[in-house]
Amino acid sequence: MTLVTCQIGVSLDGFAAGADQTPDEPLGTGGERLHEWMFGKGTEADREIATSITEGVGAFIMGRKMFAGGEGPLDPDWKGWWGDDPPYHAPVYVLTHHEREPLPMEGGTTFYFVSGGIEDALEQARDAAGDKRVDIAGGASTVQQYLRAGLIDDLYLHIAPVILGAGERLLDDVGDLALEPIEVVASPAVTHIRYRVG
Amino acid sequence: MTLVTCQIGVSLDGFAAGADQTPDEPLGTGGERLHEWMFGKGTEADREIATSITEGVGAFIMGRKMFAGGEGPLDPDWKGWWGDDPPYHAPVYVLTHHEREPLPMEGGTTFYFVSGGIEDALEQARDAAGDKRVDIAGGASTVQQYLRAGLIDDLYLHIAPVILGAGERLLDDVGDLALEPIEVVASPAVTHIRYRVG
Repeated sequence: MTLVTCQIGVSLDGFAAGADQTPDEPLGTGGERLHEWMFGKGTEADREIATSITEGVGAFIMGRKMFAGGEGPLDPDWKGWWGDDPPYHAPVYVLTHHEREPLPMEGGTTFYFVSGGIEDALEQARDAAGDKRVDIAGGASTVQQYLRAGLIDDLYLHIAPVILGAGERLLDDVGDLALEPIEVVASPAVTHIRYRVG
Repeated sequence: MTLVTCQIGVSLDGFAAGADQTPDEPLGTGGERLHEWMFGKGTEADREIATSITEGVGAFIMGRKMFAGGEGPLDPDWKGWWGDDPPYHAPVYVLTHHEREPLPMEGGTTFYFVSGGIEDALEQARDAAGDKRVDIAGGASTVQQYLRAGLIDDLYLHIAPVILGAGERLLDDVGDLALEPIEVVASPAVTHIRYRVG
């Protein structure tokens, strides 16, 4: 059975992105602070974990808002906000209400647009992933839908010691999950907690 | 300078108490799950940490709602919901709008009622604590007031792997805190993270 993971940065007050997400600031106000541990502020162990986020992933799933970088209307020529070579290097299934042809990018990333809902996207991602895992890349509302449906096996939170005060909460409206912390790695820049979802 | 600490249990979705707090269920719906790590579910290390919560504390401060066990009107004879021998064994300064004579309990706990605001309560608690620390015992809104005012040095969260879905959020409206995780202890029942508040 394909392992379904979600690895996501969150502020100590529970936000996966700041307020006012736009294509220019896709993580919202202050949202880049969630990922400072990946760069200068983190330790060597933190950087190894950052690298591992995409390792062993055979396919990703993301929400339309994450692909678009906000709620606004999506330009039909929009190619995401990661440049020509997005960091996924694998198929990425984008949940959407609008049919669109697959969008191959450099470096092995291809965006596929799925209008059949979260289970359809997961089925396509599983088929593409083979023996590798499927990772739910975000954003918050997509993660919530998969958690609520009981479809995530492994939730790996990277809790940044920052307070955003507003934005998208990660764990709202997810139902009563049975969670067990199975791995914790700590540094002055972030606390990584991996939860098995029962 | 007296160290001011706050040690508090919180759900993974950020609640320090469940919804519908009452004197019969002062932690609200499901709120007792925040403290399961202190009992059967925790490890020996967890139980040592539970014991340490009140060690070295010279005085506590708590909100009126925590003392009352909810929002309802407070019976002038109410003595808290901890029985005759509350677990504090030290002076406890209760923030209130109503004057009331000090209430000595068994085991060294005396409740003092302070109507002069959070700084007045802290001054009284510091005087009582001497060389020991002052601990902000809760609930959430009292912790928020002290965090917002920059009066807490050390925030020790005990993050239970439970989702409450509703209740009192701990870290709402606290302003932009400079936090550094300085100690992390993990078990399958809880993750303890101590933050220095800059």
